[in-house]
Formats: sequence, structure tokens, C-alpha cells
Amino acid sequence: MQFRALHRIANKFLFINKSATALHTRSMACSRYEYVKSYEQDDKILPNVWIVIRIDGKKFHKFANAHKFEKPNDENALNVMNAAGIAVMEEFRDIVLGYGQSDEYSFVFRKDTSAFKRRAAKLLSYVTSMFTSSYVLSWSQWMQQPLNYAPCFDGRVVLYPSDENLRDYLSWRQADVHVNNLYNTAFWKLVLESGLTNQQAEERLRGTFSADKNELLFQEFGINYNTLPAMYRKGTILLRKRVVLPTQDEQDKGRQAIVPIHEDLIGNEFWKQHTEILGKYVPGKHVLNSLNGQLEKQLAKQLEKQATIAGI
Amino acid sequence: MQFRALHRIANKFLFINKSATALHTRSMACSRYEYVKSYEQDDKILPNVWIVIRIDGKKFHKFANAHKFEKPNDENALNVMNAAGIAVMEEFRDIVLGYGQSDEYSFVFRKDTSAFKRRAAKLLSYVTSMFTSSYVLSWSQWMQQPLNYAPCFDGRVVLYPSDENLRDYLSWRQADVHVNNLYNTAFWKLVLESGLTNQQAEERLRGTFSADKNELLFQEFGINYNTLPAMYRKGTILLRKRVVLPTQDEQDKGRQAIVPIHEDLIGNEFWKQHTEILGKYVPGKHVLNSLNGQLEKQLAKQLEKQATIAGI
Amino acid sequence: MQFRALHRIANKFLFINKSATALHTRSMACSRYEYVKSYEQDDKILPNVWIVIRIDGKKFHKFANAHKFEKPNDENALNVMNAAGIAVMEEFRDIVLGYGQSDEYSFVFRKDTSAFKRRAAKLLSYVTSMFTSSYVLSWSQWMQQPLNYAPCFDGRVVLYPSDENLRDYLSWRQADVHVNNLYNTAFWKLVLESGLTNQQAEERLRGTFSADKNELLFQEFGINYNTLPAMYRKGTILLRKRVVLPTQDEQDKGRQAIVPIHEDLIGNEFWKQHTEILGKYVPGKHVLNSLNGQLEKQLAKQLEKQATIAGI
Amino acid sequence: MQFRALHRIANKFLFINKSATALHTRSMACSRYEYVKSYEQDDKILPNVWIVIRIDGKKFHKFANAHKFEKPNDENALNVMNAAGIAVMEEFRDIVLGYGQSDEYSFVFRKDTSAFKRRAAKLLSYVTSMFTSSYVLSWSQWMQQPLNYAPCFDGRVVLYPSDENLRDYLSWRQADVHVNNLYNTAFWKLVLESGLTNQQAEERLRGTFSADKNELLFQEFGINYNTLPAMYRKGTILLRKRVVLPTQDEQDKGRQAIVPIHEDLIGNEFWKQHTEILGKYVPGKHVLNSLNGQLEKQLAKQLEKQATIAGI
Repeated sequence: MQFRALHRIANKFLFINKSATALHTRSMACSRYEYVKSYEQDDKILPNVWIVIRIDGKKFHKFANAHKFEKPNDENALNVMNAAGIAVMEEFRDIVLGYGQSDEYSFVFRKDTSAFKRRAAKLLSYVTSMFTSSYVLSWSQWMQQPLNYAPCFDGRVVLYPSDENLRDYLSWRQADVHVNNLYNTAFWKLVLESGLTNQQAEERLRGTFSADKNELLFQEFGINYNTLPAMYRKGTILLRKRVVLPTQDEQDKGRQAIVPIHEDLIGNEFWKQHTEILGKYVPGKHVLNSLNGQLEKQLAKQLEKQATIAGI
Repeated sequence: MQFRALHRIANKFLFINKSATALHTRSMACSRYEYVKSYEQDDKILPNVWIVIRIDGKKFHKFANAHKFEKPNDENALNVMNAAGIAVMEEFRDIVLGYGQSDEYSFVFRKDTSAFKRRAAKLLSYVTSMFTSSYVLSWSQWMQQPLNYAPCFDGRVVLYPSDENLRDYLSWRQADVHVNNLYNTAFWKLVLESGLTNQQAEERLRGTFSADKNELLFQEFGINYNTLPAMYRKGTILLRKRVVLPTQDEQDKGRQAIVPIHEDLIGNEFWKQHTEILGKYVPGKHVLNSLNGQLEKQLAKQLEKQATIAGI
Repeated sequence: MQFRALHRIANKFLFINKSATALHTRSMACSRYEYVKSYEQDDKILPNVWIVIRIDGKKFHKFANAHKFEKPNDENALNVMNAAGIAVMEEFRDIVLGYGQSDEYSFVFRKDTSAFKRRAAKLLSYVTSMFTSSYVLSWSQWMQQPLNYAPCFDGRVVLYPSDENLRDYLSWRQADVHVNNLYNTAFWKLVLESGLTNQQAEERLRGTFSADKNELLFQEFGINYNTLPAMYRKGTILLRKRVVLPTQDEQDKGRQAIVPIHEDLIGNEFWKQHTEILGKYVPGKHVLNSLNGQLEKQLAKQLEKQATIAGI
Repeated sequence: MQFRALHRIANKFLFINKSATALHTRSMACSRYEYVKSYEQDDKILPNVWIVIRIDGKKFHKFANAHKFEKPNDENALNVMNAAGIAVMEEFRDIVLGYGQSDEYSFVFRKDTSAFKRRAAKLLSYVTSMFTSSYVLSWSQWMQQPLNYAPCFDGRVVLYPSDENLRDYLSWRQADVHVNNLYNTAFWKLVLESGLTNQQAEERLRGTFSADKNELLFQEFGINYNTLPAMYRKGTILLRKRVVLPTQDEQDKGRQAIVPIHEDLIGNEFWKQHTEILGKYVPGKHVLNSLNGQLEKQLAKQLEKQATIAGI
């Protein structure tokens, strides 16, 4: 015992004289270095503007080829994007609308959100990160082939002061998917069915108007463009709704879920029907008629997951 | 034939008068909406400053519990972080140093990088996204338990004008890991081996200095803190080096790889040894003595991957 | 002649070998240094928001004492401010409203202004500079005492996305002048007429409501606060109007001028009367009834100046 | 008396029921509107970088003509600029160097200044305003003709992380004055003495190098460019120095003043002589040899003013 006490004292002495002083210095150092924290700059976003965060796939042309995406649209690959978009909206409650097409996804935060104190870098990095990890985790649920390498997305924050600006932004993205998809549909028909080379197909389509491409599809391939899947032509709109199942009474309040729809959002009809987006935000109601479609199955899965979480 | 020609004309007529005008309008619309692009704001970073991007796990305390991380340090979980850090540095060539500890990782871009035109949001979102997807993809290589849900990271950009600022930033993070790890090591010994409750352990450690915790570990648990794994005490520094394998001639130029080391970077020694970081950046040489350690195996894997890519 | 030619050649030689090389180097240098220009950062203001620039006097309490301003309001000193405000609005055509009170002046730029490409520093510094030089130049027109030293103003840029925000901003400033002026009026009456010390007056007013101060003024000094000059109670609003002189036909288009008015802008009445501010900006009409008041004389001066400039 | 008391009560009642409620509402309103203050955005400048503020005359070509400035240089007009520059440096103690040429002036704040909490808009607007008002107030001390209209300056903030960047910035401005002044000197000689039109002079000088212009001046006008006043060729550098008068002992500590000099700052000599600028800032000593030159008279005036202020 006496030895132990002595040892303790000796040891204490040792520490104080050797490492301990170093450690004490180090501990001091911690606060000595802390000034570097003051170099972080405030990036709070102006109040009362729509905050749009758009995620874009990095080099997704190459990524699509490496994973043998179907041309011109790979339904499953689009659904991986949608699954990631839904995960983001489930996580960040102040997002009132998501819009996805091709390898991009836009998220609209409420004008008056105070999420992360409106700090731009926080909002941007969280959304980008959540989207990315959900994309990777959802992959195997939709895709046959394994994920060969890590996909990467960039993100940007854009601010829109007026409701009109916001609608124009979304219209811009939806007009973009229309123009691209019509072109791509015609292009890949020419390549895959008519046997043209990529270059020949490109030349064939150069300078054509939408009407020309529509006719080409109809005449040469018997395709009425407007009957192709709406997801390809309109992209996917994600809305937060109270979902009422076919088994439930229509008076039922329903349970909140993220509902993917494929409608035109350029015209006024969409905004009349979903007034909650621009108005004081309260999720609207969405009545399901069946549980058979893919969309409905997805929704059912979300609701189940919620029930499980609530059950814990 | 005549019928067909007639039909074509009729059809053309139809398109022009029905959908086509709509489509033409839509196409016009695309450019009508394009003005919204001008709302994107320039966020170019000031030239000639160190750009640090730090990634932090979102609610990782909960995440660690949900995935049963070992206390106080889970070697495998740290290596998932390191794998993600290495992937980021393999992707972005202008990162000269990575530093990871706990659930955070810092990346230092060269002062004169022109990657993504120094646009802050691009740099931030790409790094965050790449880190996130690599984290998810690396998970199963290190962890037994499956990934229960999507992990999420936030990121921030901080600028440091002088070399001294940069060193102080890194010292701050390394002093932080020291303080935290010493505390956590003592705390979990008290809880897991001495059977104290969390609260009792907390009370026991309240107000103690580093020297006291060192002595407690030594006296009560026979642990010399300084001999614990360096990765826990110092974190992980990632450097880009030309790696020379034990099988290679020392004169060999080697192949570039990201080398993880666990050294003190607060003192001058580190900076004298790795002059390339603050100097004109040319990766230094790193000679491997064996291929047996885990570090060496990781490196060998990186080099193999490069060889495979080069082989294609 | 021959000598001269020789001299020229010799001289040329000299220049080339001595200063000329230096100069050539210098000229090269000019472009060598030019990279520093790239360090200027873009500060374009988000489109479609109201841009408010507010100018504030620096240490004007001291300045007012040094120049013996009358208490609680110096009509002439306020008119120096107004003259500077008018000069700013004459210079920058995209300012739709100015609002001055005490030692501050706010200027509102049209939401869609493209003045100076919406660069924040340009807008801020030009307005501040123009205000300052006009203040100094207008001084002797209103003040008896000479300007003892250079007055200095700071400026700030604040952005308001909605019309409601803008109205609230202006209401905030007008509510401010009300609160301050009521207090100051009571304070200086107590000091100058009742012989209280500053401290005694302060104590007397501590904790009083507006109603109390109104009554104090009425009871002790026979003053109905609401009949005091509107400029003191409401501040000065500057609007761009087409002014029709009493000598002109009411149908006359009038000539543009900056009209100072002292009205309540918190209620709706003001905005109904001056719809051009929030609407598509076209200066409204302002019919003068006489040329006798001070306001009218100021306006006449502006119109004269314009006529003179047009005459050149 | 009773009547008075009654009246008071009645009046109180009146106020409470009529204007008072309105006023109370207004007072509430003040805080109701105060939220608009939160729309002001943080613009703190990154620590540890050189802050340069450059002031530029707005449309000074026209201003110079309107005030009949001498060509190519108006000594007095340049001294109005210098007087304004000196006033700015007297007011803002953290400016370590001023540099003026033509219609521009640059001010360099210490890297570690905390003036106005490093808020960009504050620094920019104060410096611009102080410069402007000092320019107007100094006008009559140097110029014969009166000031016809309000001069206006814009300002910008540029950040330089390294000492080398800062030197290059200043070298850029000084190389600029050299190139311009040599051209202007030749141009105006051709116009004013050789009787060429502006266009002819321009054509004559097109494509010439510095050496050519030097020779032209020497050959045709007998002018050795290097002997022209240094202020025209080098611009004016303002430094804060402890000035020792010829009447004082050289050991005297001297009194701080802003000293204008006209030296080359591109070479190393300047920086060796004035080490305080880049080093830990302590004003250097400046010994005056006489009080006869204009520079000396200016300095004497500054020192007198200080003595007067100190005397109060």
C-alpha cells in the first residue's frame, strides 16, 4: 500500500514533468487554435424568398452507360432518383415540392422556412448528402446490375422572390424535359430500330421542330408521343399529401406521405388543384383508388415504414 | 402511296393545328422561362486562400448507437470514414490533405486550385456527395451489421489566408480529438469495466485535467494512454504520395496513392517531413516496408484498382 | 542635320539601353500585375427584390452640437438633408422613393432596376457619395453657421422581396420618427422651458407612454402635438412627380421633379394615392396650387435648373 | 383648480379614446415592423487579408472639363484629391497606406483591423463618404474656379490574402499612372504646342512604345520625361509617420501625421525603407529638412490642426 501511494506520487510527478506538461500545453493549445472558428462566414439566406436546391448527376452520361441504362429512358433508374427524392422530402419537412427529371432533382423549401437557420451551406450539403446516400441505398431495390462505382451529385441553391418566379423555374425544368425527351425518343428509335448510326440520327433530326419529330415518330414508328409514359414526358413531381387508402373511409384524415405525380405544371390547372404549395402550407388530401399500380405500391411502402417507426 | 401522302399532309395539318402549336408554344416557353437561370448567384471563392471543406455526420451519436459502434472507438467504423476520405481525394486531385477524426473529415484544397472555377457550392456539394456515396458503398467492406438507414453529412467551406492559419485549423481539430478521446477512453473504462453508470462516470471525470485522466487510466486500468492506437489519439491524415512497394527498387518512381498516416501534425516535425503540402505541390515519396499491415493492404488495393483502370 | 540624326540614333540607343528597357519592363509589368483585378468579387444583387439603401450620419449628435442645431428639430438642417436626398433622386432615375428623418435617408430602387448591373458596392458607394457631396454643397443655402468639419455618412443595402416587406420597412422608419420626436419634443420643452436638467427631464419621461407625453405637452406647455409641423412628426417622403405649376393648364403634362411631402405612409391611403410606387413605375401628377410655400419654392428651383440644363 | 383637474381627467380620457389608442397602436407598430431589420445581411470580411478600398471619380473626364483642369495634369486638382486622401487617413487609423493617381485613390487597411467589425458596407461607405465630403470642403483651398456641381465617387472593396498580392496591386496602379501619364504628356504636347487636332495626336501616338514617346518628348519638345514632377509620374503615396520638424531635435519622438510622398513603390527599395507597412504596424519616423516646400506646408498644417484639437 505504501509502495502504491509512493508510486502514485512518483507517477504524478512524472506525468507533470513529462507528458503532463505537454498535455496541459495541448489542452491550452486547443483554445489557442480555436480562433480559426471565427473564419467561418455567415451565409444566412435572405428571408421571405423561395429556396430551390437543385441536385445534378456528375458525369451521368458515362454513369448511365457504365450501368447499361435503357435508352431513351430507364424506368428503373428514374425510380432510383424518385426514391432518393422521396427520402429527402421525408427528412426535410419544409420542402413543399420536389421535381425530378433525367439526372436532376429540384427541391423547393417554404419561403418562411427556418430550417438550419436558413444557412445556405447547411441546407445545400444536407440535401445533397441525403439525396446521395438514399440513391445508393435504393439502387438494389430497382436495378438488376450492381452499382459499379460511387455516383456523385452536385447541388446549387437558387433564390426566387416571387411565386411567379418559382412557377417559371419549374416550368423551365418541365419544358426542358419535354424538349429533350422528344428528341431522345426520336433519336433512339432511329438508332435502335431503323439502324442509323448516332451521327446519321443526329443529322436526320438537325433543324427539326417538335411537330416534325412528332410526325416522324407517328409515321415511321407508329408512336403517338402523347401516349408515352407521363413520367418520361413530364418528369416526376413530389408532393406532401395526406393519403387516404382505398380501404379507408374518404372522411379519414389519412397519413402524410410523399406522393409522386406526373402532371403538367406549366398551366394553371396544377396550381389550382394543389393550392397548398403557394398558399399557407397544409398538405392536401390524396385519395388512392387502388393499390395495384407501382405508384400506389411505393406509397404503401412509405406508409408501412411510417407505421413501423411509429410502432417502435 | 397516295393515301399515305395524303395522310401525311393531313397529319401534318393536324399537328400544326392541335398539339403542334402547343408544342411550339412550349418550345418557345422554354426560352421564355430561361430568365430564371439568371437568378443563380456567383459564389467564386477569393483567389490565393486555402479552401477547407469539413464534412460532419448528422446525428451520428444516434447513428453510432443504431449500428452498435464499439466504445469509445470503433476501428471499423473509422475505417469506413477513411475509405470515404480516400475516395474523395482520389476524385479531386487538388486536395492536398485530408484529416479525419470521429464523424468528421476535413479536406484541404490547394491555394491556387481552379477546380470548378472555385465556385463554393460546386466544391462543397461535390465533396459532400462523393464522401457520402463512398461511405455507403464502403460500409459492407468493414462492417458486419447492415446499414439500417441512410447516413447524412453536412459540409461547410472555410477559407484560410495564411499557412499559419491552415496549420492552426488542423491543430485545432487534432487537439480536439486528443481532448475528446482521452475523456472518452476514461469514461468508457469506468462504465464498461468499473461498472459505473454513465452519470457516475461523468461526475468522476468532471473538472479533471488531462494529467488526472492519464493517471486514472494508468492506476485503475493499467493503461498507458500514449500506447493506445495512434488512429484513436491522433486521427487520420491522408496524404497523396508516390508509393514504392517493398518489391520495388527504392529508385522506382512509384505510383500515386492516398496514404493514411496517424501522426502529430501540431509540431513542426510533420511539416518538415511533408514539405509538399505548403510548398509547390508535388507528391512526396512513401516507401512501404512490408505488405502485411492493414494500412499496407489498403494501399495495395488502391494501386491495384489504378492498375485495373489503366489496363482498360 | 547630320549631327542631329546621329544624336537621334545615339539617343534612341541610350533609351533602349537604359530607361527604355526599364520602361518596356514596366509596360510588361502593367500586365504582369493585372491579375490582381481578378480578386474583385461579384456582388450582383438578386433580381426582383426591392433594393433599399439607407444613409446614416456618423456621430451626428456631436455634429449637431458643433453646429448649434436647434432642439428638438432644426428645420434648416433637415432641409439640408432633404436637398441632398433630392439631388440623389435627380441623379439616380431608378429610385422611386426617398424617405428622410433625423440624420438618416432611405432610398428605394425599383425591383427591376439594372442600374450599375445591380452591383451592390457600386449602388451603395455612388448613392452615399452623391448624398454626401450634395449635403456639403447645400449647406450654405440653408445654414447660417459655416461647416466646421467634414460630415460623414455610412450606408447599407437591404433587400426586401415583397411589397409588404417594403411597406413595413418604411412604416418602421416612420414609426421610429414618431416615437423619437414625441420624446424629444417633450424632453426639450422640459429642459428649455421648465428649466429641468437633462437628467431630470429624462427621469420625468422614463416609463411614460405616448399618451402621457401628449398630455404633458398639452397640460404643461399648451401644445397639441398633432399640430406641430408634419416634417418633424412624419419625416420627409420624396416622390418623382410630373409637376404642374399654378400658371399651367391642369391638362399640361408637367415636368418631372422630386416632390417632398410629409404624409402618413403607414396607412393604406398613401399607397392608394401613389400607386406608381408599387405598380409599373410612371411618375404621377402633382398639381401645385401656389408658389408661395417653401416646398413650392424648392420645386420651382428644381424646374428652373432643369430648364437651364435643357437650354444648354 | 377643480376645473383643471376635471379637464385633465377629461383630456386623459379623450387621448386614451382617440389619438392615444392610435398612438399606442403606433408604438406597438414600431415593434411590429421591426422584423424588417432581420433582412440586413452579414457582410463581415474574412479575417487576416489586406482590405483595399479604391475610390474612383464618376464621369471625371466631364468633371475635369467643366472645371477647366489643366492638361495633362492639374497640380491643384491632384492636391484636392490628396487633401481628401489625407482626411480619410486621419479619420480611419487602421489605414496604413493611401495611394492616389488621376481621379482614383486606394486605401489599405491593416490585415488585422477590426474597424467596424470588418463589415464591408460600413468600411466602404464611410471611406467613400469621408473622401467625398473632404474633397468638396478642400476644393476652395486649391482651386480658383468654384465647384459647379456635386462630384461623385464610387468605391469598391478588394481583398488580398498575401503581401505579394498587395504589392502587386499597388504596382498595378503605379504602372497604370506611368503608362497613362507618358501618353497624356505626349498627346497634350502635340495638341497644345504642335497644334495637332486630338485625332491627329492620337494617330501619331498609335502603336508607339514607351521608348518612342520618351524620344518624341525629348526630340520635339526638349523634355526629359524623367525630370517631370514625380507626383505626375508616380502618383502620391500617403504614409502615417512621426514627423520631426527641422526645429526639433532629431531624437524627438515627433507627432503623427500623414506624409505624402511620390516614390517608386514597384521596386524593393520602398518596402525596405517603410517596413512598418507590411510588418507589425508602428508609424516610422520622417524628418523634415525645411518648411518651405508645399509638401512641408501641408504637413505643418496637419500638425497645427492636431495641436489645436489637443489644445481644446
